[in-house]
Amino acid sequence: MTAFNCLTFLTDFGLDDGFVAACHGVAVRIAPAARIIDLTHLVPPGDVRRGAAVLSQTITSMPPAVHVAVADPGVGTERRAVAIQAGQAVLVGPDNGLLSWAVSALGGPSRAVELTNESLWNHPVSRTFHGRDIFMPVAARLFSGVALEDAGTEIGVRELVTLAPPVSRITAAGAEGEVLSADRFGNVQLSILAADAAEAGIGIGAELLSRCNRAEFTAPFLDTFGSARPGDLIAFADSAGLISLAVSNGNAAERLSLPPGARVRIATLPAT
Amino acid sequence: MTAFNCLTFLTDFGLDDGFVAACHGVAVRIAPAARIIDLTHLVPPGDVRRGAAVLSQTITSMPPAVHVAVADPGVGTERRAVAIQAGQAVLVGPDNGLLSWAVSALGGPSRAVELTNESLWNHPVSRTFHGRDIFMPVAARLFSGVALEDAGTEIGVRELVTLAPPVSRITAAGAEGEVLSADRFGNVQLSILAADAAEAGIGIGAELLSRCNRAEFTAPFLDTFGSARPGDLIAFADSAGLISLAVSNGNAAERLSLPPGARVRIATLPAT
Amino acid sequence: MTAFNCLTFLTDFGLDDGFVAACHGVAVRIAPAARIIDLTHLVPPGDVRRGAAVLSQTITSMPPAVHVAVADPGVGTERRAVAIQAGQAVLVGPDNGLLSWAVSALGGPSRAVELTNESLWNHPVSRTFHGRDIFMPVAARLFSGVALEDAGTEIGVRELVTLAPPVSRITAAGAEGEVLSADRFGNVQLSILAADAAEAGIGIGAELLSRCNRAEFTAPFLDTFGSARPGDLIAFADSAGLISLAVSNGNAAERLSLPPGARVRIATLPAT
Repeated sequence: MTAFNCLTFLTDFGLDDGFVAACHGVAVRIAPAARIIDLTHLVPPGDVRRGAAVLSQTITSMPPAVHVAVADPGVGTERRAVAIQAGQAVLVGPDNGLLSWAVSALGGPSRAVELTNESLWNHPVSRTFHGRDIFMPVAARLFSGVALEDAGTEIGVRELVTLAPPVSRITAAGAEGEVLSADRFGNVQLSILAADAAEAGIGIGAELLSRCNRAEFTAPFLDTFGSARPGDLIAFADSAGLISLAVSNGNAAERLSLPPGARVRIATLPAT
Repeated sequence: MTAFNCLTFLTDFGLDDGFVAACHGVAVRIAPAARIIDLTHLVPPGDVRRGAAVLSQTITSMPPAVHVAVADPGVGTERRAVAIQAGQAVLVGPDNGLLSWAVSALGGPSRAVELTNESLWNHPVSRTFHGRDIFMPVAARLFSGVALEDAGTEIGVRELVTLAPPVSRITAAGAEGEVLSADRFGNVQLSILAADAAEAGIGIGAELLSRCNRAEFTAPFLDTFGSARPGDLIAFADSAGLISLAVSNGNAAERLSLPPGARVRIATLPAT
Repeated sequence: MTAFNCLTFLTDFGLDDGFVAACHGVAVRIAPAARIIDLTHLVPPGDVRRGAAVLSQTITSMPPAVHVAVADPGVGTERRAVAIQAGQAVLVGPDNGLLSWAVSALGGPSRAVELTNESLWNHPVSRTFHGRDIFMPVAARLFSGVALEDAGTEIGVRELVTLAPPVSRITAAGAEGEVLSADRFGNVQLSILAADAAEAGIGIGAELLSRCNRAEFTAPFLDTFGSARPGDLIAFADSAGLISLAVSNGNAAERLSLPPGARVRIATLPAT
């Protein structure tokens, strides 16, 4: 078992209630020395794909950790609770795909258990708050040295529920992907790695033509939006290495009205 | 004096300003090793009842701690500042009822002092920011080993201001309570303990008729909303043990328009 | 080199994404024992003056620390990245004025370096996320004992970019300032220190006449708004020592519609 540096915590619980804090309290009672890094708690309620995207893009900056993630519209049903080893990390949460992209980002699952060892839980277990009563207490005990295999029944890693990855492919005409999300700055992140696009000849300096349904818009592919004029629409490789659309000093999400999941094709325009 | 594991902190300060952080800074200067768990800082400004509800429902998940809570529309008036021992915890805040439900949840007050020992405060004391200048510095010193009786003048625990508890009673017809709050998921929490309702024959599997003013709605009392169809209105026992109304994959607060404080009566419908 | 008690962190990153957490993760990998105090992450995107105001008003409550601040509309341009010693603190961020008011609040800059030592950075360095890749890793290493002069090339403190301070002056007729911000409670903070205003005869108990463009409003200058009637407009000295306008149990920002930057003149009315 590796030594863990901290716990991390991502949920859709929001910040208005005491739900996040209750889980912190449970963790601290079990593992008084554990540092907890909150990834975000503002995943839209039940939005498993958004949670998976934030988790997978953030987890690579973390030290070796036990990661707890909860966006769990199926709480109280037969969906499994799992812990998954991936690299030096263990991820704990519902087996609904939420963890799957992060597991991939860490190199794939090496082992997994269904959380069936009830002696590691917080009793009485509520029917609707497994974050407090199952996921966090198990995670805190794994952090404290309990072995993964003692958390429950081993299951084959191929049995784990995975989310379909976002569409992302290189085509004869260029690249095709989908909108992953818009961040606070209104930057629209596409599911196209800049490194992949480069293989299709889409590189810094190119003039890009993007199409989504019947809408078309052009934008230069710049190395940073600092070099654009205020109001210009540009494309750039963002901090996750993905192609994103931005408006310098503005809000691309508002201007383009591209919702998460919208299919986008990009191609280079010939130099004029 | 018990040993405390951490400080907790609940306020109506919001997250846009530096107010919460200023209090953290003050605490760390006094008690460099103290862990601080933020319960929430999004209590609506001055909403003492909402603050009391979140505090009382979260505090039971916490390790032995000094709890600081501030929702204090009377700051700068003659309202007292107090520290109250309850169980292994000490609660610090304004004596306006904010702490009272949490004190009850911890088994009631065993001792209380009015914070009159100004040598424990942060000087100069502002007239409007007692969180930074009185409550947190006193709490950090209590955490560090200062005895409760050294924080000020002992007062009788019966003199403490208490909030009227939410209406909650078992009647011949069923149970009666009020809306405590709606959480981020739109679940409407009533002030009726499922355990109390069970004594009135309101148990899992019953079909409930709820009345609020002239509105009536029916909902099955399920053990979890995972077993409902999307869009169904259901009742369930939430993570605090209270009966709550929810819409599966939806938002009961929006559908029912029941504000905090609204009186609700529930009864079982005969099986048809 | 002083010993630092913690890192502090202020940004315009928001709380919906994983950006803040990614920086925490980077810090913890470098400095596992470092406490991080989040000042706020809800500075409006790119609002350098608002970030500077919150930072300068909060930093004085902090223990000796390395302070990281990022509101950086020029990321990826030629703007410098800097670390500035001021008092027992070091401030790390973009050289766009964001740090300047806090540096002044700490007594002024004693030394400054441009962050040119790339061996302290997180590689590969993204073009748009210097918080994660430059500012936080350098700050964590300074916290861990790296000397300021080893972070880069020393620059003259007079070369640092500074924001123009808010207008604030005592006039023959009274005092003149500008709106700095409105807090969560709707209190409108002016850039006029109560201590300065006192020298112009504007003290507790005076009836104030405030003018902004063609609007005029009167308000008593009270020592606390606890003594006002609900709905009354009052002036008071806030927790930063600045004159603020408030509505008791109400929202002065909404009633007065005074945006940040609006010029306000205040004078005393003769007693009637």
